[in-house]
Amino acid sequence: MKIVLLCGGVGGSKLALGLYSEFPDADFSIIVNTADDLEILGLHISPDLDTVTYTLAALSNPDTGWGLAGDSFHALAMLASYGHDGWFQLGDRDLATHLTRTHLLRSGMSLSEATGRIVRSLGVRASILPMCDEKVSTRVRTAGGWLAFQEYFVKRRHADKPIAVTHDGVESASVGPAVRDALLAADRVVVAPSNPVVSIGPIMALPGMLEILRSRRERTVAVSPIVGGQAVSGPAGELMKSQGFQASAAGVAAMYASFIEALIIDKADRDLASTIEGMDVRPEVTDTIMPDLASKKRVARFAVEATRR
Amino acid sequence: MKIVLLCGGVGGSKLALGLYSEFPDADFSIIVNTADDLEILGLHISPDLDTVTYTLAALSNPDTGWGLAGDSFHALAMLASYGHDGWFQLGDRDLATHLTRTHLLRSGMSLSEATGRIVRSLGVRASILPMCDEKVSTRVRTAGGWLAFQEYFVKRRHADKPIAVTHDGVESASVGPAVRDALLAADRVVVAPSNPVVSIGPIMALPGMLEILRSRRERTVAVSPIVGGQAVSGPAGELMKSQGFQASAAGVAAMYASFIEALIIDKADRDLASTIEGMDVRPEVTDTIMPDLASKKRVARFAVEATRR
Repeated sequence: MKIVLLCGGVGGSKLALGLYSEFPDADFSIIVNTADDLEILGLHISPDLDTVTYTLAALSNPDTGWGLAGDSFHALAMLASYGHDGWFQLGDRDLATHLTRTHLLRSGMSLSEATGRIVRSLGVRASILPMCDEKVSTRVRTAGGWLAFQEYFVKRRHADKPIAVTHDGVESASVGPAVRDALLAADRVVVAPSNPVVSIGPIMALPGMLEILRSRRERTVAVSPIVGGQAVSGPAGELMKSQGFQASAAGVAAMYASFIEALIIDKADRDLASTIEGMDVRPEVTDTIMPDLASKKRVARFAVEATRR
Repeated sequence: MKIVLLCGGVGGSKLALGLYSEFPDADFSIIVNTADDLEILGLHISPDLDTVTYTLAALSNPDTGWGLAGDSFHALAMLASYGHDGWFQLGDRDLATHLTRTHLLRSGMSLSEATGRIVRSLGVRASILPMCDEKVSTRVRTAGGWLAFQEYFVKRRHADKPIAVTHDGVESASVGPAVRDALLAADRVVVAPSNPVVSIGPIMALPGMLEILRSRRERTVAVSPIVGGQAVSGPAGELMKSQGFQASAAGVAAMYASFIEALIIDKADRDLASTIEGMDVRPEVTDTIMPDLASKKRVARFAVEATRR
């Protein structure tokens, strides 16, 4: 079975791990948002790629969902001596990933190739694919002006109300052959419970991507990241409102309706089922919170089986 | 008093610390070899600049003479997962220096400017000046062929017999204004007990440098790094022989005779005094081994006073 997951970082990687664990024999490809990527001290940092990779490699920090378990921060402490503002946490072992990626990119590799090298080095058997090789940069407009995504999200802890969102560079980026081939060959396409605006949104915004996704609609299911009108984590609700959507599972259905056949919603959102059906999206109800591996695997199986109902 | 020291890494930094501690009110400039510099994973590493800087900042590892006291190696361990051959020890806090330098260089700063920023950040009041801003790369020829200096020195632990030495790029490098001005204004010029071939040699090989040094001969003194026919540390003896010089304090005198007025030799080399005098270099005899701060300060004062005798 060929499974493709569209995915952001911390939220989506839970379902990624569920699929990876529940379907160990599947041909599993994960298309990951890279519009959160940033450069710090000349290092190319891909937070979502790293989160997914570390999670599948069983190296991720269980307390935060990002970074490496047991990492230390000695380099970051020394960087402070040199006047570096350490708002973005760079762990010592994590730095090894950023150094390796940056070096491979400077040596002429594409981000896809560098990611493949890193993923294989850590023993992960899934294909983890950056959504594109070109630079795309999400920015969020707040009352104080436009902020780079990580400045909005990490540095200012998404405390500012978002007014608008842009993905700079996306119009000149392109869907790479590995991403296109994985989607066109997929038996199942799953949209992770990631932030619809800043994690799945950039993937959807790639030129030609919606046409590809729509051609796979009957095999595509999403898991709602909004439960009971609240994002499971992060600022998804506020960001959806900034785009004119409701901060609800119905809002998620509205965003994805053209390319998903079913939306998996939480039991808490049962009463939204008819609204979602009205958008020609089939609601599938289950417990979508994934605090442990058993629940991740259960939601993963539910998602894969939902596309066959 | 204006003091200038010509210096390599571990050996020379002992006298650098002696001068810095014994003459706290001096205007102290240290011209440091950069022909050992190397690039690892895209990071610009300047081992001698770092050793001198860390030593004067009281941050250096007392057991090795290089690196930072108490540093950890978590990034290096993770880099091994990515297939990186970790023969060059990159400590976590040390990485912060390499990242900062590399970032400043990529942002358009010269090596001199980047070094100044790093030195001031660590609270060092001396001027630590790279010998030049251009790239110069020492290579050592062995029976097995030419080796990059750090490959010869660190990776293969200078176990190969050196046959020849070259400083690639030195003919198109230039003495920068800060180095020139420091030398021309100096009351005292001291040549540290560094490796004459691969630490002081590259400095001497800069176009125009010998002329400047010769113009300061009556104020210039060197401390021999060879005691009793053996290098105090490292492969200085073998390297001197590869250049046709004796591995002795007399060989050091022969290499430096055109620009030093006096050579400080160890008591163990007392019997070489007349040979050295025959090269028109005045021998000054003292105990030159510097195991502790008191001895470093004593040799520092002896060197400064030797230029006045």
